[in-house]
Amino acid sequence: MPESAVVAQAVVRSGPRQPFGSRLAAAMADLGPLCVGIDPHPGLLSDWGLNDDVAGLERFSLTVVEAVATLAAAVKPQVALYERHGSAGMAVLERTLAAASDAGVLSIADAKRGDIGSTMAAYADAWLRDGSSLAADSVTLSPYLGFESLRPALDLADEYGRGVFVLALTSNPEGKSVQHVGGSESVARRIAEAAADENRRYAGTMGSVGLVVGATIGTALVDLGLDLNAVRGPILAPGLGAQGATPADLRATFGEAYPAVLATSSRGILAAGPAVAGLRSATEATRDGLLEG
Amino acid sequence: MPESAVVAQAVVRSGPRQPFGSRLAAAMADLGPLCVGIDPHPGLLSDWGLNDDVAGLERFSLTVVEAVATLAAAVKPQVALYERHGSAGMAVLERTLAAASDAGVLSIADAKRGDIGSTMAAYADAWLRDGSSLAADSVTLSPYLGFESLRPALDLADEYGRGVFVLALTSNPEGKSVQHVGGSESVARRIAEAAADENRRYAGTMGSVGLVVGATIGTALVDLGLDLNAVRGPILAPGLGAQGATPADLRATFGEAYPAVLATSSRGILAAGPAVAGLRSATEATRDGLLEG
Repeated sequence: MPESAVVAQAVVRSGPRQPFGSRLAAAMADLGPLCVGIDPHPGLLSDWGLNDDVAGLERFSLTVVEAVATLAAAVKPQVALYERHGSAGMAVLERTLAAASDAGVLSIADAKRGDIGSTMAAYADAWLRDGSSLAADSVTLSPYLGFESLRPALDLADEYGRGVFVLALTSNPEGKSVQHVGGSESVARRIAEAAADENRRYAGTMGSVGLVVGATIGTALVDLGLDLNAVRGPILAPGLGAQGATPADLRATFGEAYPAVLATSSRGILAAGPAVAGLRSATEATRDGLLEG
Repeated sequence: MPESAVVAQAVVRSGPRQPFGSRLAAAMADLGPLCVGIDPHPGLLSDWGLNDDVAGLERFSLTVVEAVATLAAAVKPQVALYERHGSAGMAVLERTLAAASDAGVLSIADAKRGDIGSTMAAYADAWLRDGSSLAADSVTLSPYLGFESLRPALDLADEYGRGVFVLALTSNPEGKSVQHVGGSESVARRIAEAAADENRRYAGTMGSVGLVVGATIGTALVDLGLDLNAVRGPILAPGLGAQGATPADLRATFGEAYPAVLATSSRGILAAGPAVAGLRSATEATRDGLLEG
Protein backbone atom coordinates (compact mmCIF):
# COMPACT_ATOMS: atom_id res chain seq x y z
CA MET A 1 0.00 0.00 0.00
CA PRO A 2 1.48 3.37 -0.87
CA GLU A 3 2.04 5.19 2.41
CA SER A 4 0.84 8.48 1.02
CA ALA A 5 -2.57 6.98 0.23
CA VAL A 6 -2.90 5.57 3.73
CA VAL A 7 -2.06 8.93 5.27
CA ALA A 8 -4.48 10.77 3.00
CA GLN A 9 -7.24 8.36 3.95
CA ALA A 10 -6.47 8.72 7.65
CA VAL A 11 -6.97 12.46 7.33
CA VAL A 12 -10.25 12.05 5.50
CA ARG A 13 -11.73 9.49 7.90
CA SER A 14 -14.09 11.17 10.30
CA GLY A 15 -14.17 8.44 12.91
CA PRO A 16 -14.38 4.73 13.46
CA ARG A 17 -16.72 2.98 11.07
CA GLN A 18 -19.52 0.85 12.53
CA PRO A 19 -19.10 -2.90 11.98
CA PHE A 20 -20.22 -4.04 8.53
CA GLY A 21 -22.88 -6.39 9.90
CA SER A 22 -24.51 -3.55 11.83
CA ARG A 23 -24.42 -1.28 8.82
CA LEU A 24 -25.89 -3.94 6.56
CA ALA A 25 -28.62 -4.84 9.07
CA ALA A 26 -29.61 -1.17 9.23
CA ALA A 27 -29.70 -0.89 5.44
CA MET A 28 -31.80 -4.04 5.14
CA ALA A 29 -34.22 -2.77 7.80
CA ASP A 30 -34.48 0.55 5.99
CA LEU A 31 -34.60 -0.57 2.35
CA GLY A 32 -35.39 -4.26 2.35
CA PRO A 33 -33.25 -7.36 1.74
CA LEU A 34 -32.19 -6.69 -1.85
CA CYS A 35 -28.70 -6.55 -3.32
CA VAL A 36 -28.41 -5.51 -6.96
CA GLY A 37 -25.69 -7.33 -8.85
CA ILE A 38 -23.65 -5.15 -11.22
CA ASP A 39 -22.81 -7.67 -13.94
CA PRO A 40 -21.57 -5.97 -17.10
CA HIS A 41 -21.70 -9.11 -19.24
CA PRO A 42 -20.90 -8.57 -22.95
CA GLY A 43 -24.50 -9.44 -23.86
CA LEU A 44 -25.95 -6.89 -21.44
CA LEU A 45 -23.57 -4.19 -22.66
CA SER A 46 -24.79 -4.89 -26.18
CA ASP A 47 -28.45 -4.81 -25.07
CA TRP A 48 -27.79 -1.40 -23.55
CA GLY A 49 -26.26 -0.12 -26.81
CA LEU A 50 -22.79 -0.02 -25.29
CA ASN A 51 -19.50 -1.35 -26.61
CA ASP A 52 -17.72 -4.22 -24.86
CA ASP A 53 -14.88 -1.93 -23.81
CA VAL A 54 -13.88 0.12 -20.78
CA ALA A 55 -16.04 3.09 -21.78
CA GLY A 56 -19.09 0.83 -22.02
CA LEU A 57 -18.13 -0.84 -18.75
CA GLU A 58 -17.95 2.50 -16.95
CA ARG A 59 -21.18 3.85 -18.39
CA PHE A 60 -23.02 0.65 -17.44
CA SER A 61 -21.61 0.51 -13.91
CA LEU A 62 -22.16 4.14 -12.99
CA THR A 63 -25.69 4.05 -14.41
CA VAL A 64 -26.60 1.10 -12.19
CA VAL A 65 -25.14 2.77 -9.09
CA GLU A 66 -26.98 6.02 -9.83
CA ALA A 67 -30.26 4.19 -10.41
CA VAL A 68 -30.35 1.84 -7.43
CA ALA A 69 -28.25 3.45 -4.69
CA THR A 70 -31.24 4.79 -2.75
CA LEU A 71 -33.38 1.68 -3.32
CA ALA A 72 -31.19 -1.32 -2.55
CA ALA A 73 -29.38 -2.34 0.63
CA ALA A 74 -26.24 -3.11 -1.33
CA VAL A 75 -24.70 -3.38 -4.78
CA LYS A 76 -22.45 -6.25 -5.84
CA PRO A 77 -20.07 -5.62 -8.74
CA GLN A 78 -18.88 -8.90 -10.30
CA VAL A 79 -15.11 -8.51 -10.32
CA ALA A 80 -14.46 -11.03 -13.12
CA LEU A 81 -16.32 -8.82 -15.56
CA TYR A 82 -13.96 -5.92 -14.82
CA GLU A 83 -10.81 -8.07 -14.70
CA ARG A 84 -11.75 -9.30 -18.19
CA HIS A 85 -10.83 -5.80 -19.40
CA GLY A 86 -7.44 -5.90 -17.68
CA SER A 87 -6.02 -3.16 -15.48
CA ALA A 88 -8.15 -0.55 -17.27
CA GLY A 89 -11.23 -2.55 -16.31
CA MET A 90 -10.04 -2.72 -12.72
CA ALA A 91 -9.74 1.07 -12.77
CA VAL A 92 -13.41 1.21 -13.75
CA LEU A 93 -14.18 -1.04 -10.79
CA GLU A 94 -12.34 1.40 -8.54
CA ARG A 95 -14.51 4.25 -9.82
CA THR A 96 -17.64 2.11 -9.44
CA LEU A 97 -16.81 1.33 -5.81
CA ALA A 98 -16.08 5.00 -5.17
CA ALA A 99 -19.41 5.99 -6.75
CA ALA A 100 -21.24 3.49 -4.53
CA SER A 101 -19.51 4.90 -1.47
CA ASP A 102 -20.32 8.48 -2.49
CA ALA A 103 -23.95 7.50 -3.07
CA GLY A 104 -24.15 5.90 0.37
CA VAL A 105 -24.92 2.35 -0.73
CA LEU A 106 -22.98 -0.60 0.69
CA SER A 107 -20.73 -2.49 -1.72
CA ILE A 108 -19.91 -6.17 -2.00
CA ALA A 109 -16.94 -6.84 -4.28
CA ASP A 110 -17.74 -10.28 -5.70
CA ALA A 111 -14.13 -11.41 -6.09
CA LYS A 112 -14.14 -14.92 -4.54
CA ARG A 113 -10.51 -14.52 -3.51
CA GLY A 114 -8.66 -17.03 -1.37
CA ASP A 115 -5.06 -17.91 -0.54
CA ILE A 116 -2.88 -18.47 2.51
CA GLY A 117 -0.59 -16.51 4.79
CA SER A 118 1.00 -13.33 3.52
CA THR A 119 -0.66 -13.80 0.12
CA MET A 120 -4.10 -13.85 1.72
CA ALA A 121 -3.02 -10.77 3.67
CA ALA A 122 -2.29 -9.06 0.35
CA TYR A 123 -5.82 -9.81 -0.91
CA ALA A 124 -7.14 -8.42 2.37
CA ASP A 125 -5.05 -5.28 1.81
CA ALA A 126 -6.55 -4.90 -1.66
CA TRP A 127 -10.23 -5.23 -0.76
CA LEU A 128 -10.54 -4.36 2.93
CA ARG A 129 -7.92 -1.82 3.96
CA ASP A 130 -8.58 1.91 4.17
CA GLY A 131 -6.52 3.68 1.53
CA SER A 132 -6.72 0.87 -1.03
CA SER A 133 -8.27 2.01 -4.29
CA LEU A 134 -10.19 -1.28 -4.49
CA ALA A 135 -11.52 -1.20 -0.91
CA ALA A 136 -15.19 -2.19 -0.70
CA ASP A 137 -17.52 -2.51 2.27
CA SER A 138 -17.18 -6.27 1.89
CA VAL A 139 -15.70 -8.93 -0.36
CA THR A 140 -16.60 -12.51 -1.24
CA LEU A 141 -14.01 -15.18 -0.40
CA SER A 142 -13.41 -18.79 -1.47
CA PRO A 143 -12.34 -21.30 1.22
CA TYR A 144 -10.77 -24.22 -0.71
CA LEU A 145 -7.63 -23.70 1.40
CA GLY A 146 -9.71 -23.94 4.59
CA PHE A 147 -11.87 -21.37 6.38
CA GLU A 148 -9.00 -20.52 8.71
CA SER A 149 -6.75 -19.66 5.74
CA LEU A 150 -8.95 -16.57 5.38
CA ARG A 151 -7.82 -15.30 8.81
CA PRO A 152 -5.96 -12.18 7.52
CA ALA A 153 -9.16 -11.01 5.80
CA LEU A 154 -11.38 -11.82 8.78
CA ASP A 155 -9.15 -9.79 11.05
CA LEU A 156 -8.60 -6.85 8.70
CA ALA A 157 -12.34 -6.64 7.98
CA ASP A 158 -12.99 -6.48 11.71
CA GLU A 159 -10.36 -3.80 12.21
CA TYR A 160 -11.85 -1.53 9.54
CA GLY A 161 -15.56 -2.17 10.01
CA ARG A 162 -15.74 -4.13 6.79
CA GLY A 163 -17.14 -7.59 6.08
CA VAL A 164 -16.68 -10.81 4.16
CA PHE A 165 -19.00 -13.37 2.55
CA VAL A 166 -17.47 -16.83 2.45
CA LEU A 167 -18.61 -19.33 -0.20
CA ALA A 168 -20.45 -22.13 1.59
CA LEU A 169 -23.16 -23.87 -0.42
CA THR A 170 -23.87 -23.06 -4.04
CA SER A 171 -26.60 -24.21 -6.37
CA ASN A 172 -24.50 -25.20 -9.39
CA PRO A 173 -24.71 -29.01 -9.68
CA GLU A 174 -20.94 -29.51 -9.81
CA GLY A 175 -20.53 -27.72 -6.46
CA LYS A 176 -21.68 -30.89 -4.69
CA SER A 177 -18.42 -32.67 -5.52
CA VAL A 178 -16.69 -30.41 -3.00
CA GLN A 179 -19.32 -28.83 -0.74
CA HIS A 180 -21.46 -31.90 0.01
CA VAL A 181 -18.53 -34.26 0.62
CA GLY A 182 -18.15 -35.59 4.16
CA GLY A 183 -21.64 -36.78 5.12
CA SER A 184 -22.80 -35.33 8.42
CA GLU A 185 -19.57 -33.34 8.62
CA SER A 186 -19.75 -31.95 5.11
CA VAL A 187 -17.38 -29.29 3.84
CA ALA A 188 -20.26 -26.78 3.60
CA ARG A 189 -21.34 -27.49 7.18
CA ARG A 190 -17.79 -26.97 8.45
CA ILE A 191 -17.67 -23.59 6.71
CA ALA A 192 -21.00 -22.55 8.24
CA GLU A 193 -19.90 -23.62 11.71
CA ALA A 194 -16.62 -21.75 11.38
CA ALA A 195 -18.50 -18.59 10.36
CA ALA A 196 -20.78 -18.99 13.39
CA ASP A 197 -17.74 -19.22 15.66
CA GLU A 198 -16.25 -16.16 14.04
CA ASN A 199 -19.39 -14.07 14.53
CA ARG A 200 -19.18 -14.54 18.30
CA ARG A 201 -17.03 -11.42 18.32
CA TYR A 202 -19.99 -9.39 17.08
CA ALA A 203 -22.29 -9.56 20.07
CA GLY A 204 -25.81 -8.15 19.97
CA THR A 205 -25.95 -7.45 16.24
CA MET A 206 -25.66 -9.21 12.92
CA GLY A 207 -22.09 -10.42 12.48
CA SER A 208 -19.74 -9.17 9.77
CA VAL A 209 -18.86 -12.66 8.54
CA GLY A 210 -21.48 -13.68 6.02
CA LEU A 211 -21.90 -16.72 3.82
CA VAL A 212 -22.74 -17.18 0.15
CA VAL A 213 -25.58 -19.70 -0.16
CA GLY A 214 -27.37 -20.15 -3.48
CA ALA A 215 -31.04 -19.22 -3.66
CA THR A 216 -31.82 -22.36 -5.66
CA ILE A 217 -30.20 -25.03 -3.45
CA GLY A 218 -33.57 -26.64 -2.71
CA THR A 219 -33.40 -28.90 0.37
CA ALA A 220 -29.62 -28.98 0.68
CA LEU A 221 -29.61 -27.07 3.98
CA VAL A 222 -31.79 -29.74 5.57
CA ASP A 223 -30.02 -32.60 3.81
CA LEU A 224 -26.63 -31.46 5.09
CA GLY A 225 -27.79 -30.26 8.51
CA LEU A 226 -26.63 -26.68 8.06
CA ASP A 227 -27.96 -24.35 10.75
CA LEU A 228 -27.77 -20.93 9.08
CA ASN A 229 -29.68 -19.38 11.96
CA ALA A 230 -26.70 -20.13 14.19
CA VAL A 231 -24.35 -18.28 11.84
CA ARG A 232 -25.73 -14.90 12.93
CA GLY A 233 -24.24 -13.28 9.83
CA PRO A 234 -25.76 -12.15 6.56
CA ILE A 235 -26.56 -14.79 3.93
CA LEU A 236 -25.85 -13.56 0.42
CA ALA A 237 -28.19 -15.52 -1.83
CA PRO A 238 -27.60 -15.19 -5.57
CA GLY A 239 -30.23 -16.62 -7.88
CA LEU A 240 -33.31 -14.44 -7.47
CA GLY A 241 -35.32 -13.64 -10.57
CA ALA A 242 -33.75 -14.45 -13.92
CA GLN A 243 -31.65 -17.20 -12.33
CA GLY A 244 -34.72 -19.07 -11.08
CA ALA A 245 -35.75 -18.38 -7.49
CA THR A 246 -38.92 -16.59 -6.42
CA PRO A 247 -39.32 -14.75 -3.11
CA ALA A 248 -41.49 -17.65 -1.92
CA ASP A 249 -38.68 -20.07 -2.80
CA LEU A 250 -36.29 -18.03 -0.68
CA ARG A 251 -38.58 -18.17 2.36
CA ALA A 252 -39.09 -21.91 1.91
CA THR A 253 -35.36 -22.60 1.41
CA PHE A 254 -34.01 -20.49 4.26
CA GLY A 255 -36.79 -20.89 6.84
CA GLU A 256 -35.91 -19.33 10.17
CA ALA A 257 -32.74 -17.81 8.72
CA TYR A 258 -34.70 -15.79 6.15
CA PRO A 259 -34.38 -12.48 8.04
CA ALA A 260 -30.61 -12.65 7.49
CA VAL A 261 -30.92 -13.33 3.76
CA LEU A 262 -29.71 -10.64 1.36
CA ALA A 263 -31.15 -11.73 -1.98
CA THR A 264 -29.18 -10.81 -5.08
CA SER A 265 -30.75 -10.09 -8.41
CA SER A 266 -28.69 -9.15 -11.43
CA ARG A 267 -30.07 -9.80 -14.90
CA GLY A 268 -33.71 -9.55 -13.86
CA ILE A 269 -33.06 -5.92 -12.93
CA LEU A 270 -30.27 -5.05 -15.35
CA ALA A 271 -32.39 -6.14 -18.33
CA ALA A 272 -34.66 -3.18 -17.54
CA GLY A 273 -31.87 -0.71 -18.42
CA PRO A 274 -30.32 1.39 -19.74
CA ALA A 275 -32.99 3.91 -18.70
CA VAL A 276 -32.59 4.87 -15.04
CA ALA A 277 -36.36 4.95 -14.61
CA GLY A 278 -36.63 1.38 -15.87
CA LEU A 279 -33.87 0.18 -13.56
CA ARG A 280 -35.53 1.91 -10.61
CA SER A 281 -38.94 0.39 -11.36
CA ALA A 282 -37.45 -3.09 -11.67
CA THR A 283 -35.51 -2.64 -8.44
CA GLU A 284 -38.59 -1.46 -6.56
CA ALA A 285 -40.71 -4.30 -7.93
CA THR A 286 -38.07 -6.88 -6.98
CA ARG A 287 -37.68 -5.42 -3.50
CA ASP A 288 -41.44 -5.25 -2.95
CA GLY A 289 -41.71 -8.87 -4.03
CA LEU A 290 -39.17 -9.81 -1.37
CA LEU A 291 -40.98 -7.84 1.32
CA GLU A 292 -44.35 -9.31 0.45
CA GLY A 293 -43.26 -12.77 -0.77
CA MET B 1 -12.46 -7.76 -24.63
CA PRO B 2 -11.81 -4.62 -26.66
CA GLU B 3 -12.11 -5.61 -30.30
CA SER B 4 -9.14 -3.50 -31.33
CA ALA B 5 -6.88 -5.47 -28.99
CA VAL B 6 -8.11 -8.79 -30.38
CA VAL B 7 -7.45 -7.65 -33.92
CA ALA B 8 -3.98 -6.37 -33.05
CA GLN B 9 -3.12 -9.66 -31.41
CA ALA B 10 -4.47 -11.65 -34.33
CA VAL B 11 -2.12 -9.78 -36.62
CA VAL B 12 0.87 -10.42 -34.38
CA ARG B 13 0.23 -14.16 -33.91
CA SER B 14 2.42 -16.14 -36.21
CA GLY B 15 0.55 -19.42 -35.99
CA PRO B 16 -1.12 -21.86 -33.66
CA ARG B 17 0.61 -22.18 -30.31
CA GLN B 18 1.70 -25.63 -29.12
CA PRO B 19 -0.27 -26.95 -26.14
CA PHE B 20 0.92 -25.57 -22.81
CA GLY B 21 1.81 -28.98 -21.41
CA SER B 22 4.09 -29.69 -24.37
CA ARG B 23 5.74 -26.31 -24.08
CA LEU B 24 6.28 -26.71 -20.33
CA ALA B 25 7.66 -30.25 -20.73
CA ALA B 26 10.15 -28.94 -23.26
CA ALA B 27 11.20 -26.10 -20.98
CA MET B 28 11.62 -28.47 -18.02
CA ALA B 29 13.68 -30.86 -20.15
CA ASP B 30 15.84 -27.98 -21.30
CA LEU B 31 16.25 -25.96 -18.10
CA GLY B 32 15.23 -28.21 -15.24
CA PRO B 33 12.07 -28.36 -13.08
CA LEU B 34 12.28 -24.94 -11.45
CA CYS B 35 9.67 -22.19 -11.38
CA VAL B 36 10.71 -18.88 -9.82
CA GLY B 37 7.94 -17.17 -7.87
CA ILE B 38 7.74 -13.40 -8.37
CA ASP B 39 6.45 -12.34 -4.96
CA PRO B 40 6.87 -8.60 -4.40
CA HIS B 41 6.01 -8.72 -0.71
CA PRO B 42 6.39 -5.40 1.14
CA GLY B 43 9.27 -6.83 3.17
CA LEU B 44 11.16 -7.95 0.07
CA LEU B 45 10.64 -4.59 -1.62
CA SER B 46 12.15 -2.98 1.45
CA ASP B 47 15.07 -5.42 1.49
CA TRP B 48 15.76 -4.48 -2.12
CA GLY B 49 15.76 -0.77 -1.23
CA LEU B 50 12.49 -0.19 -3.10
CA ASN B 51 9.35 1.60 -1.99
CA ASP B 52 6.11 -0.31 -1.46
CA ASP B 53 4.50 1.40 -4.43
CA VAL B 54 3.91 0.72 -8.12
CA ALA B 55 7.36 1.98 -9.13
CA GLY B 56 8.98 -0.42 -6.66
CA LEU B 57 6.67 -3.20 -7.79
CA GLU B 58 7.66 -2.72 -11.43
CA ARG B 59 11.37 -2.47 -10.75
CA PHE B 60 11.26 -5.64 -8.65
CA SER B 61 9.20 -7.63 -11.17
CA LEU B 62 11.18 -6.70 -14.27
CA THR B 63 14.47 -7.35 -12.50
CA VAL B 64 13.38 -10.88 -11.60
CA VAL B 65 12.21 -11.60 -15.16
CA GLU B 66 15.46 -10.27 -16.60
CA ALA B 67 17.55 -12.29 -14.18
CA VAL B 68 15.89 -15.68 -14.40
CA ALA B 69 14.22 -15.89 -17.83
CA THR B 70 16.98 -17.98 -19.39
CA LEU B 71 17.50 -20.15 -16.30
CA ALA B 72 14.05 -21.23 -15.10
CA ALA B 73 11.34 -23.21 -16.86
CA ALA B 74 8.71 -20.74 -15.71
CA VAL B 75 8.03 -17.66 -13.61
CA LYS B 76 5.01 -17.31 -11.34
CA PRO B 77 3.89 -13.78 -10.43
CA GLN B 78 1.71 -13.79 -7.30
CA VAL B 79 -1.34 -11.81 -8.43
CA ALA B 80 -2.45 -10.78 -4.92
CA LEU B 81 0.71 -8.74 -4.51
CA TYR B 82 -0.13 -6.71 -7.62
CA GLU B 83 -3.86 -6.43 -6.84
CA ARG B 84 -2.87 -4.97 -3.47
CA HIS B 85 -1.75 -1.88 -5.41
CA GLY B 86 -5.09 -1.61 -7.23
CA SER B 87 -5.52 -1.14 -10.96
CA ALA B 88 -2.08 0.50 -11.20
CA GLY B 89 -0.60 -2.64 -9.69
CA MET B 90 -2.49 -4.78 -12.18
CA ALA B 91 -0.98 -2.67 -14.95
CA VAL B 92 2.47 -3.59 -13.59
CA LEU B 93 1.42 -7.23 -13.73
CA GLU B 94 0.47 -6.78 -17.38
CA ARG B 95 3.94 -5.38 -18.11
CA THR B 96 5.55 -8.20 -16.12
CA LEU B 97 3.67 -10.85 -18.11
CA ALA B 98 4.61 -9.10 -21.35
CA ALA B 99 8.26 -9.00 -20.29
CA ALA B 100 8.18 -12.73 -19.53
CA SER B 101 6.68 -13.42 -22.93
CA ASP B 102 9.25 -11.23 -24.66
CA ALA B 103 12.04 -13.00 -22.78
CA GLY B 104 10.71 -16.39 -23.81
CA VAL B 105 9.98 -17.75 -20.35
CA LEU B 106 6.62 -19.40 -19.57
CA SER B 107 4.36 -17.57 -17.14
CA ILE B 108 2.01 -18.88 -14.48
CA ALA B 109 -0.34 -16.18 -13.15
CA ASP B 110 -0.93 -17.29 -9.57
CA ALA B 111 -4.46 -15.91 -9.29
CA LYS B 112 -6.43 -18.82 -7.75
CA ARG B 113 -9.58 -17.70 -9.53
CA GLY B 114 -12.81 -19.66 -9.51
CA ASP B 115 -16.49 -19.05 -10.22
CA ILE B 116 -19.30 -20.54 -12.29
CA GLY B 117 -20.85 -20.13 -15.71
CA SER B 118 -20.47 -16.85 -17.53
CA THR B 119 -18.50 -15.40 -14.61
CA MET B 120 -15.93 -18.17 -14.86
CA ALA B 121 -15.86 -17.52 -18.60
CA ALA B 122 -14.96 -13.90 -17.82
CA TYR B 123 -12.00 -15.00 -15.68
CA ALA B 124 -10.95 -17.29 -18.53
CA ASP B 125 -11.17 -14.31 -20.90
CA ALA B 126 -8.94 -12.28 -18.58
CA TRP B 127 -6.13 -14.81 -18.11
CA LEU B 128 -6.27 -17.18 -21.08
CA ARG B 129 -7.59 -15.41 -24.18
CA ASP B 130 -5.33 -13.97 -26.87
CA GLY B 131 -5.70 -10.21 -26.88
CA SER B 132 -6.26 -9.87 -23.13
CA SER B 133 -3.68 -7.64 -21.49
CA LEU B 134 -3.51 -10.08 -18.55
CA ALA B 135 -3.12 -13.24 -20.64
CA ALA B 136 -0.48 -15.60 -19.24
CA ASP B 137 0.71 -18.99 -20.44
CA SER B 138 -1.24 -20.48 -17.55
CA VAL B 139 -3.24 -19.53 -14.48
CA THR B 140 -3.94 -21.13 -11.11
CA LEU B 141 -7.58 -21.90 -10.30
CA SER B 142 -9.52 -22.69 -7.12
CA PRO B 143 -12.20 -25.43 -7.31
CA TYR B 144 -14.46 -24.79 -4.27
CA LEU B 145 -17.39 -24.61 -6.71
CA GLY B 146 -16.42 -28.01 -8.18
CA PHE B 147 -13.77 -28.99 -10.72
CA GLU B 148 -16.35 -28.92 -13.49
CA SER B 149 -17.24 -25.29 -12.68
CA LEU B 150 -13.84 -24.46 -14.19
CA ARG B 151 -14.98 -25.77 -17.60
CA PRO B 152 -14.86 -22.38 -19.43
CA ALA B 153 -11.18 -22.01 -18.45
CA LEU B 154 -10.31 -25.62 -19.31
CA ASP B 155 -11.79 -25.21 -22.76
CA LEU B 156 -10.38 -21.75 -23.47
CA ALA B 157 -6.92 -22.84 -22.33
CA ASP B 158 -7.11 -25.77 -24.74
CA GLU B 159 -8.24 -23.54 -27.58
CA TYR B 160 -5.32 -21.13 -27.16
CA GLY B 161 -2.54 -23.53 -26.18
CA ARG B 162 -2.57 -22.26 -22.62
CA GLY B 163 -2.82 -24.17 -19.34
CA VAL B 164 -4.27 -24.21 -15.84
CA PHE B 165 -3.12 -25.42 -12.44
CA VAL B 166 -6.00 -26.41 -10.19
CA LEU B 167 -5.59 -26.30 -6.41
CA ALA B 168 -5.71 -29.87 -5.14
CA LEU B 169 -3.75 -30.56 -1.95
CA THR B 170 -1.96 -27.86 -0.03
CA SER B 171 0.36 -28.02 2.93
CA ASN B 172 -1.21 -25.36 5.15
CA PRO B 173 -2.73 -27.20 8.15
CA GLU B 174 -6.19 -25.61 7.76
CA GLY B 175 -6.45 -26.93 4.18
CA LYS B 176 -7.32 -30.36 5.58
CA SER B 177 -10.77 -29.16 6.68
CA VAL B 178 -11.75 -29.04 3.02
CA GLN B 179 -9.26 -31.08 0.99
CA HIS B 180 -9.02 -34.19 3.20
CA VAL B 181 -12.75 -34.47 3.86
CA GLY B 182 -14.49 -37.54 2.43
CA GLY B 183 -12.26 -40.46 3.45
CA SER B 184 -11.30 -42.65 0.51
CA GLU B 185 -13.21 -40.29 -1.79
CA SER B 186 -11.64 -37.12 -0.47
CA VAL B 187 -12.15 -33.73 -2.10
CA ALA B 188 -8.47 -33.61 -3.12
CA ARG B 189 -8.66 -37.08 -4.70
CA ARG B 190 -11.75 -36.08 -6.69
CA ILE B 191 -9.91 -33.05 -8.04
CA ALA B 192 -6.90 -35.16 -9.05
CA GLU B 193 -9.12 -37.72 -10.78
CA ALA B 194 -10.99 -35.00 -12.66
CA ALA B 195 -7.68 -33.52 -13.86
CA ALA B 196 -6.58 -36.98 -15.04
CA ASP B 197 -9.81 -37.33 -17.02
CA GLU B 198 -9.30 -33.91 -18.53
CA ASN B 199 -5.75 -34.65 -19.65
CA ARG B 200 -7.00 -37.53 -21.82
CA ARG B 201 -7.39 -34.95 -24.56
CA TYR B 202 -3.64 -34.39 -24.56
CA ALA B 203 -2.41 -37.70 -25.91
CA GLY B 204 1.28 -38.54 -26.05
CA THR B 205 2.56 -35.55 -24.10
CA MET B 206 2.24 -33.89 -20.73
CA GLY B 207 -1.30 -32.54 -20.38
CA SER B 208 -2.12 -28.86 -20.03
CA VAL B 209 -4.23 -29.34 -16.88
CA GLY B 210 -1.90 -29.23 -13.91
CA LEU B 211 -2.45 -29.40 -10.18
CA VAL B 212 -1.13 -27.37 -7.27
CA VAL B 213 0.20 -29.74 -4.60
CA GLY B 214 2.25 -28.40 -1.72
CA ALA B 215 5.87 -29.50 -1.46
CA THR B 216 5.54 -30.00 2.30
CA ILE B 217 2.43 -32.22 2.43
CA GLY B 218 4.41 -35.14 3.86
CA THR B 219 2.54 -38.45 3.46
CA ALA B 220 -0.82 -36.96 2.46
CA LEU B 221 -0.67 -38.38 -1.07
CA VAL B 222 -0.39 -41.90 0.31
CA ASP B 223 -2.84 -41.27 3.14
CA LEU B 224 -5.51 -40.04 0.72
CA GLY B 225 -4.71 -42.45 -2.11
CA LEU B 226 -3.93 -39.76 -4.68
CA ASP B 227 -2.31 -41.12 -7.83
CA LEU B 228 -0.52 -38.10 -9.26
CA ASN B 229 1.20 -40.26 -11.83
CA ALA B 230 -2.20 -40.88 -13.41
CA VAL B 231 -2.85 -37.14 -13.75
CA ARG B 232 -0.34 -36.84 -16.60
CA GLY B 233 -0.20 -33.07 -16.08
CA PRO B 234 2.37 -30.84 -14.42
CA ILE B 235 2.42 -30.67 -10.62
CA LEU B 236 3.16 -27.16 -9.38
CA ALA B 237 4.74 -27.61 -5.97
CA PRO B 238 5.23 -24.46 -3.89
CA GLY B 239 7.30 -24.74 -0.77
CA LEU B 240 10.86 -25.35 -1.91
CA GLY B 241 13.65 -23.62 -0.03
CA ALA B 242 12.67 -20.87 2.38
CA GLN B 243 9.26 -22.48 2.88
CA GLY B 244 10.73 -25.74 4.10
CA ALA B 245 11.16 -28.47 1.48
CA THR B 246 14.49 -29.79 0.20
CA PRO B 247 14.95 -31.45 -3.20
CA ALA B 248 15.19 -34.79 -1.40
CA ASP B 249 11.86 -34.08 0.32
CA LEU B 250 10.29 -33.47 -3.09
CA ARG B 251 11.51 -36.80 -4.47
CA ALA B 252 10.30 -38.62 -1.36
CA THR B 253 6.91 -36.89 -1.36
CA PHE B 254 6.10 -37.24 -5.05
CA GLY B 255 7.73 -40.60 -5.83
CA GLU B 256 6.97 -41.81 -9.32
CA ALA B 257 5.26 -38.52 -10.18
CA TYR B 258 8.45 -36.54 -9.53
CA PRO B 259 9.28 -36.07 -13.23
CA ALA B 260 6.10 -34.02 -13.58
CA VAL B 261 6.87 -31.79 -10.59
CA LEU B 262 7.61 -28.14 -11.23
CA ALA B 263 9.07 -26.94 -7.96
CA THR B 264 8.50 -23.32 -7.05
CA SER B 265 10.93 -21.26 -5.04
CA SER B 266 10.23 -17.63 -4.20
CA ARG B 267 11.89 -16.11 -1.17
CA GLY B 268 14.90 -18.41 -1.23
CA ILE B 269 15.83 -16.93 -4.60
CA LEU B 270 14.38 -13.43 -4.26
CA ALA B 271 16.34 -12.81 -1.06
CA ALA B 272 19.49 -12.91 -3.22
CA GLY B 273 18.42 -9.72 -5.04
CA PRO B 274 18.37 -6.98 -6.05
CA ALA B 275 21.60 -7.69 -7.96
CA VAL B 276 20.89 -9.66 -11.13
CA ALA B 277 24.07 -11.67 -10.62
CA GLY B 278 22.93 -12.71 -7.16
CA LEU B 279 19.49 -13.72 -8.42
CA ARG B 280 21.05 -15.76 -11.21
CA SER B 281 23.43 -17.55 -8.88
CA ALA B 282 20.64 -18.41 -6.48
CA THR B 283 18.45 -19.63 -9.34
CA GLU B 284 21.22 -21.82 -10.74
CA ALA B 285 22.03 -23.25 -7.33
CA THR B 286 18.37 -24.04 -6.66
CA ARG B 287 17.95 -25.63 -10.07
CA ASP B 288 21.11 -27.67 -9.72
CA GLY B 289 19.91 -28.86 -6.35
CA LEU B 290 16.72 -30.12 -7.95
CA LEU B 291 18.58 -31.89 -10.74
CA GLU B 292 21.00 -33.57 -8.34
CA GLY B 293 18.71 -33.95 -5.32
